[in-house]
Amino acid sequence: MSSGIRHYCGVFGIAGHPEAAQLTYLGLYAQQHRGQEAAGICTADGQRMIRRAGSGLVADALDAQDLEELRNPLAIGHVRYSTTGSGHEANVQPLQVSCSIGQVAICHNGNLINAAGVRHEYESDGHIFTGTSDTEVILHMLVNRDFAERPDPLAAVLRHLRGSYSLLMLHPDRIEAARDPTGNRPLCLGRIADTWIVASETCALDLVGAQYVRDVEPGEIVTLTPNGIQSRRFIERRACRPAQCIFEHIYFADPSSLVFGENVHLVRKQMGRALARYAPANADLIVPVPNCARCAALGYHEESNIPLGRGFTTSHYVGRSFIQPSQTVRDLTVRLKLNPIRASVEGKRLVVVEDSVVRGTTTRGKMQSLRDAGAKQLHLRVASPPIRHPCYYGIDFPSREELIANARTVEQIRDYLAVDSLAYLPLERMLSCVKPHNGHFCTACFSGEYPIPIDPYFQKDMFERQQLRFFEPLHGGDPAKDTAPAP
Amino acid sequence: MSSGIRHYCGVFGIAGHPEAAQLTYLGLYAQQHRGQEAAGICTADGQRMIRRAGSGLVADALDAQDLEELRNPLAIGHVRYSTTGSGHEANVQPLQVSCSIGQVAICHNGNLINAAGVRHEYESDGHIFTGTSDTEVILHMLVNRDFAERPDPLAAVLRHLRGSYSLLMLHPDRIEAARDPTGNRPLCLGRIADTWIVASETCALDLVGAQYVRDVEPGEIVTLTPNGIQSRRFIERRACRPAQCIFEHIYFADPSSLVFGENVHLVRKQMGRALARYAPANADLIVPVPNCARCAALGYHEESNIPLGRGFTTSHYVGRSFIQPSQTVRDLTVRLKLNPIRASVEGKRLVVVEDSVVRGTTTRGKMQSLRDAGAKQLHLRVASPPIRHPCYYGIDFPSREELIANARTVEQIRDYLAVDSLAYLPLERMLSCVKPHNGHFCTACFSGEYPIPIDPYFQKDMFERQQLRFFEPLHGGDPAKDTAPAP
Amino acid sequence: MSSGIRHYCGVFGIAGHPEAAQLTYLGLYAQQHRGQEAAGICTADGQRMIRRAGSGLVADALDAQDLEELRNPLAIGHVRYSTTGSGHEANVQPLQVSCSIGQVAICHNGNLINAAGVRHEYESDGHIFTGTSDTEVILHMLVNRDFAERPDPLAAVLRHLRGSYSLLMLHPDRIEAARDPTGNRPLCLGRIADTWIVASETCALDLVGAQYVRDVEPGEIVTLTPNGIQSRRFIERRACRPAQCIFEHIYFADPSSLVFGENVHLVRKQMGRALARYAPANADLIVPVPNCARCAALGYHEESNIPLGRGFTTSHYVGRSFIQPSQTVRDLTVRLKLNPIRASVEGKRLVVVEDSVVRGTTTRGKMQSLRDAGAKQLHLRVASPPIRHPCYYGIDFPSREELIANARTVEQIRDYLAVDSLAYLPLERMLSCVKPHNGHFCTACFSGEYPIPIDPYFQKDMFERQQLRFFEPLHGGDPAKDTAPAP
Amino acid sequence: MSSGIRHYCGVFGIAGHPEAAQLTYLGLYAQQHRGQEAAGICTADGQRMIRRAGSGLVADALDAQDLEELRNPLAIGHVRYSTTGSGHEANVQPLQVSCSIGQVAICHNGNLINAAGVRHEYESDGHIFTGTSDTEVILHMLVNRDFAERPDPLAAVLRHLRGSYSLLMLHPDRIEAARDPTGNRPLCLGRIADTWIVASETCALDLVGAQYVRDVEPGEIVTLTPNGIQSRRFIERRACRPAQCIFEHIYFADPSSLVFGENVHLVRKQMGRALARYAPANADLIVPVPNCARCAALGYHEESNIPLGRGFTTSHYVGRSFIQPSQTVRDLTVRLKLNPIRASVEGKRLVVVEDSVVRGTTTRGKMQSLRDAGAKQLHLRVASPPIRHPCYYGIDFPSREELIANARTVEQIRDYLAVDSLAYLPLERMLSCVKPHNGHFCTACFSGEYPIPIDPYFQKDMFERQQLRFFEPLHGGDPAKDTAPAP
Repeated sequence: MSSGIRHYCGVFGIAGHPEAAQLTYLGLYAQQHRGQEAAGICTADGQRMIRRAGSGLVADALDAQDLEELRNPLAIGHVRYSTTGSGHEANVQPLQVSCSIGQVAICHNGNLINAAGVRHEYESDGHIFTGTSDTEVILHMLVNRDFAERPDPLAAVLRHLRGSYSLLMLHPDRIEAARDPTGNRPLCLGRIADTWIVASETCALDLVGAQYVRDVEPGEIVTLTPNGIQSRRFIERRACRPAQCIFEHIYFADPSSLVFGENVHLVRKQMGRALARYAPANADLIVPVPNCARCAALGYHEESNIPLGRGFTTSHYVGRSFIQPSQTVRDLTVRLKLNPIRASVEGKRLVVVEDSVVRGTTTRGKMQSLRDAGAKQLHLRVASPPIRHPCYYGIDFPSREELIANARTVEQIRDYLAVDSLAYLPLERMLSCVKPHNGHFCTACFSGEYPIPIDPYFQKDMFERQQLRFFEPLHGGDPAKDTAPAP
Repeated sequence: MSSGIRHYCGVFGIAGHPEAAQLTYLGLYAQQHRGQEAAGICTADGQRMIRRAGSGLVADALDAQDLEELRNPLAIGHVRYSTTGSGHEANVQPLQVSCSIGQVAICHNGNLINAAGVRHEYESDGHIFTGTSDTEVILHMLVNRDFAERPDPLAAVLRHLRGSYSLLMLHPDRIEAARDPTGNRPLCLGRIADTWIVASETCALDLVGAQYVRDVEPGEIVTLTPNGIQSRRFIERRACRPAQCIFEHIYFADPSSLVFGENVHLVRKQMGRALARYAPANADLIVPVPNCARCAALGYHEESNIPLGRGFTTSHYVGRSFIQPSQTVRDLTVRLKLNPIRASVEGKRLVVVEDSVVRGTTTRGKMQSLRDAGAKQLHLRVASPPIRHPCYYGIDFPSREELIANARTVEQIRDYLAVDSLAYLPLERMLSCVKPHNGHFCTACFSGEYPIPIDPYFQKDMFERQQLRFFEPLHGGDPAKDTAPAP
Repeated sequence: MSSGIRHYCGVFGIAGHPEAAQLTYLGLYAQQHRGQEAAGICTADGQRMIRRAGSGLVADALDAQDLEELRNPLAIGHVRYSTTGSGHEANVQPLQVSCSIGQVAICHNGNLINAAGVRHEYESDGHIFTGTSDTEVILHMLVNRDFAERPDPLAAVLRHLRGSYSLLMLHPDRIEAARDPTGNRPLCLGRIADTWIVASETCALDLVGAQYVRDVEPGEIVTLTPNGIQSRRFIERRACRPAQCIFEHIYFADPSSLVFGENVHLVRKQMGRALARYAPANADLIVPVPNCARCAALGYHEESNIPLGRGFTTSHYVGRSFIQPSQTVRDLTVRLKLNPIRASVEGKRLVVVEDSVVRGTTTRGKMQSLRDAGAKQLHLRVASPPIRHPCYYGIDFPSREELIANARTVEQIRDYLAVDSLAYLPLERMLSCVKPHNGHFCTACFSGEYPIPIDPYFQKDMFERQQLRFFEPLHGGDPAKDTAPAP
Repeated sequence: MSSGIRHYCGVFGIAGHPEAAQLTYLGLYAQQHRGQEAAGICTADGQRMIRRAGSGLVADALDAQDLEELRNPLAIGHVRYSTTGSGHEANVQPLQVSCSIGQVAICHNGNLINAAGVRHEYESDGHIFTGTSDTEVILHMLVNRDFAERPDPLAAVLRHLRGSYSLLMLHPDRIEAARDPTGNRPLCLGRIADTWIVASETCALDLVGAQYVRDVEPGEIVTLTPNGIQSRRFIERRACRPAQCIFEHIYFADPSSLVFGENVHLVRKQMGRALARYAPANADLIVPVPNCARCAALGYHEESNIPLGRGFTTSHYVGRSFIQPSQTVRDLTVRLKLNPIRASVEGKRLVVVEDSVVRGTTTRGKMQSLRDAGAKQLHLRVASPPIRHPCYYGIDFPSREELIANARTVEQIRDYLAVDSLAYLPLERMLSCVKPHNGHFCTACFSGEYPIPIDPYFQKDMFERQQLRFFEPLHGGDPAKDTAPAP
């Protein structure tokens, strides 16, 4: 059972628009960087629901006929990442079922820590599970007598859940949007005239021409109907312990998005400036690793006044259908995505800015290719701290052993990456780049301090049986993350 | 008959490698930005030839089985653009035939000006043409008695051709590579150990791990065999009048490539610097239009010291399969490829750097979206002169009437684009950014001075009967070029 | 909710063979005529299960990689028909779930009459349903406390079910096969050496090289393991009221199969002989309607001594991808599947033998085309009685109103079909062609006498809300069944 | 060079119908049994031409958009067989070119014996060939001065051709249809009101609702325009030596077609009767090998009064996508297409009627499966003589060595096939079944008497270099032909 593995995802919902399915399609498209393995939309007309979903990019998963059939005024949608084993069709969200409260569809971004335990208990109690996602567990809880008979069953269920979740639930006549008490994952509200929208990131609001209004608060449930929104809390504000995922700012979110109250691009630039102050370098040129580190490189440049250059050209054509080259030429293909510009780097002392380093193998390859292209010195600057711990709230990092910083000193990593100098941005300095009044951040992958306790069942699953794997590149054509094992 | 329409293309050839087809596949992939409509490879084993080709990107056009069947030590390949009408299979290159000199395959990048006339003459004389490409005309000339009986038929044919061409011809036992006397299109030689390679751009050499040796010279024919290369000239060096396509540096070529003896990235940066000197701006931030103008924007920044920002995030997911949104939400999709980063541009006076402006409609949309995102002032700086004339040597611009600069003053263009100020880099200043000792450049699209006279037949075809269209974005996910008509 | 709609299906299971998935694939292929809309296989290795399924023919639904991944010694598989509305992925069988009894997969052929009621009751009780098939209901009952705590939960559940079913259930280490107390649908046991197999029809045993052993008896559960089979009954033999579906012999089953103890081809031939005795004709030639009626036509010929001819050629190339012709030529396409042989029928008095007539529209078209081809007289002989009543046990006939015999006398039908004479084989005569000692048959569609009472819920669903539709041609390229409405 | 290999094909043309492309599509569909490897249509509007073609069945090769783009009043189309090596796109017919006589498209059914020689001569003379089909040779001859300057160039070319051909040539404003002086391949004229049609078989006329008018005569050219037809001869009638392909009647043509003036079904039945008279058998049941031999089996039955049974059921679902089973179960798949009906044949003495035997391996397998199903005796009766010689006029038999009758006596063949008795229909008796007044037949594959002399070039190609292969089953789902080598 792999129910413990969670994936990074994006959600979108809209209540009361004649082209709800079309706008949801665009909203998912804008959040494509949050999930490229599958996409689905479920819509409702006040009485009935219809669902269409498929694997791959939004444009592959859904076609014009799907959108035509989905023509209803209420809609929720989902894009997701999956690991190989659990990629089967029964898990593609939104999940739609029929049960005692009628037809319901649900999708979420996040990871439920106590899902495995609840599921085990419910199975013993006669429940049947068709997929392996923890989303399904939420539905089972909802119709369970323990919760169903409460005045507000959804609130009761949410109080019982442990983990991170930004959740959308579609009923025939309304959408309920909820965010976990730690606010670990982003979730924002916007509007087009009188139509309300909810999405993981504001870039989805921008694309559909909606105005950002506010975030859904940690511990809040917002109900969206064609007549407006209503808010209630399932947990008191003062009882909420914010633990927003700092990795949204470091890597996941689109630079144009407003996440946790701040623009991602500006935060990243700040991190770059802080990095320049903390770890200056005697160099001729700053080279960002495309495309994510470009914001941080800009900040490093502004602070250091070292010229900002372009070290690589990027190819946008690599897809899954690319033929695996033969053994002999296999090593050529590491250059497929990143081609160093020799004329730009030859004979230069380079500051290479990265947003983060996971396994280290890809970074090592990039350093080698810059060296091959004639770079005289390589000073690697990473705009976040070393990643040393697994994430249980939704990031599918590789196993602890595969993390390059797990059992190595910075010096040892420098040796492995074969660079002249290496510096990571320390945790406190990184945190100084985000506004404290927006609440605390989860930094577990750096610090090992987990804001939400891990339950025994989950531990067992996670530690003993599962092979956690860090996602493939989130951003198309972006090779920033490592994919092969280190020494 | 649409034989006058030429396309922008890329070629690759390799003589004497056990994995020639695989390396050609990679070499075409590296030059994917030069042609995305079709791809083909033809290989030979000393006696026989085999050809495989298809439409779409390299990875779509050819599959693993094709490569397996193509396993031969000599190979040439081609990627190309096409216009709708002439996209039929008979035109996909390399073109392979059997004739008096045995089996021959040919592919080229460029445009033959006198092809229509020659073709007409040959048809009258009993020749049969199966496609509409001018490549076919070259083959017919080769076996024509007038040329076939000369001591060097290929040289004789090339002397007779008018136009631009970088040409590869595959015989069962060798490759012949030729470049027209003006050197209008790039063509370079490289080697992996003792194996010789020829390609349009050096980025293809880089990807396959080959070393750049030199360019094929204007007026030269280089024969590549497994035993090495041999050179001969079909026209004396002193009789060659270089007219290298300046648009390779402005837009077509990959920034990492060495083209006409200079690195494209550095030339573009120089153009950006020249632009900053010629047309400074009182502004807070420089915003490059991704992805092409990033090099020029870097130059503008270095010269002006105005901070270099990031105005847009780019999406890499838009493909042909994207569903056409309904009428109501159609205007939302202009944001699909370029999403402005509000936090970055809001309240700012921006310098927007473009590499070139063709129709102006897309640029206008981008300016509008920056304005919508809160930009206070927009100062558009274009790193090349206004395009006012059609190209007959291989660039498929739209018709003269659709060129925004055709009948408008810079002031009128400024009004249409709705920017606060607008400046183009003047022709002489642009030319000052490339090294003169590498020879003269063709600037016909800016100046109207055509280095190769246009023959009457061609004129008739081009001006009366054909609808010339500028290509769709060359670089994946790059929206830099306009696609809709202007007022 | 469309849970009342059942489809005609085929099942196959094999316990303990190194190539279980491969053999199941072949076994499904042999039963392709029982279901062409979707196919699925689920396999187990003693501990884990894996499932692969898809839409379309077996060869489309599953590919080589699927079979590779399914490499386990125990397997069950399913082919099915579906109606448009319920064709969504969640319904493709086998259905695999995880619940209190571990992992279970299930598939069946038949129709549960009381599924809707049970489902409604269970939903009220907190159960969640993800699809619309009644198969899912069986699983919910199994884990329900009422049944789960019995000594033999499966037997308890089966005793509670109403309707027709030939059911396979896969556990990690065994297969359970059960047949309803009426034995409405066929289910047979076979073996390859020591490996036991269960299938809907013996033609599946033949194809995989297995020997037929016996049928699963009505009211029996057979457990198949790699070590052999075990039998138990969930209802006493004397309490079983056989009601075998006579339509298996008339139309569904493959002529080579042994169904309900008799060979289908021989039974059909007997029906043809009985028809010839009951309704002789003064004619020159017998023309079977391909391909199903060929067996009956053979019988008619043997009894009547009227020469057996060939009236039609059949096309095997019509598939779903065939382009819908324009309005003008649409009426030409009725000839696509059946082309009359003019030279064979011109000027002749024909006996046309059909196995059954449902809507009558296709039959009418065939009669017209024979008339157009020059037939002098048309004497239609149908080897079964008029269909006047809906089937609730698994045949998806059109609505009562669409059945041509519903409100018409034979005379009126004759007029509508425009034939010179028309005769149906009377019910008793038809029944005289099958061996009585094999038990009684269900003839509800002819007689209106339903052997299993219809429950109120089901009635409501079936009669008020649903549009029942008779399946498209079961046998590839067989146009024997009608598809358009009658006057 | 494989230009000597010819394929079995079908053609269709229509002059002056608003839905010419649609009707051609249907006309090709009706002749799908004549070629399943590729299909193409070329249409004209009086001035321009457009061509669409693809590989596979008609429904795969052309889609709705193709038909839309082909919307022109004149159309010709082609279906063809190909051998692996020559299946590349340049050979898919119709072949469309532009030359001195403007745009021309051509397609044909047949085989030119002197094509290789002419081609060689023309290549020496400066012509260029893009494919390997002999159709291309015809075009080159047409524009050659030797022919182009004659009063009627097409007639002059046809007089020069040696071999079999039923040829359609599309000009912008008319279709020319020609049949070789031996009339080796069928070609018929039909009409829908005032619109004239030409097709290989009359079954194509039937499907589009056209009336058969007459055959194109050997040595005749018929010009079809929207205004009617005109006829001329390129060779005098008395100079024509009819040599119609008897295999059209034995195997190729559709039973419903009128070929060479006689209905195929009736001719086959006559052959069956002749076979019964020549080689009676003491047997209980006649079993035709589906589907081709059904007509002959009917005749054998009528003459012998031995009951006609059904020995096999046929599957219509086997396609190319069927997964290759593993080594272990590979031998099961011989039953995939033909499943013996045990109940029908068990304990019986069978007369098995075949239309022809080529390699013998498939027939041997069928005999074995009938034996396995319990047949007591097997008396094989073949409704044509032993095939002992290659065909140079269009049938792609296997090499002489692979023909089972090449070097074996009937007795030896009987042993190999393991039947109790074996008889072939002798040549004269077979010829007595077709009307002599329709002209002579070519029986070269049986007798070795070639009506058209073979030229030296062709001999060289055919005998030394080429591996002739008999086609895969012509009729879908028909396994009548052998595919594996014999001892």
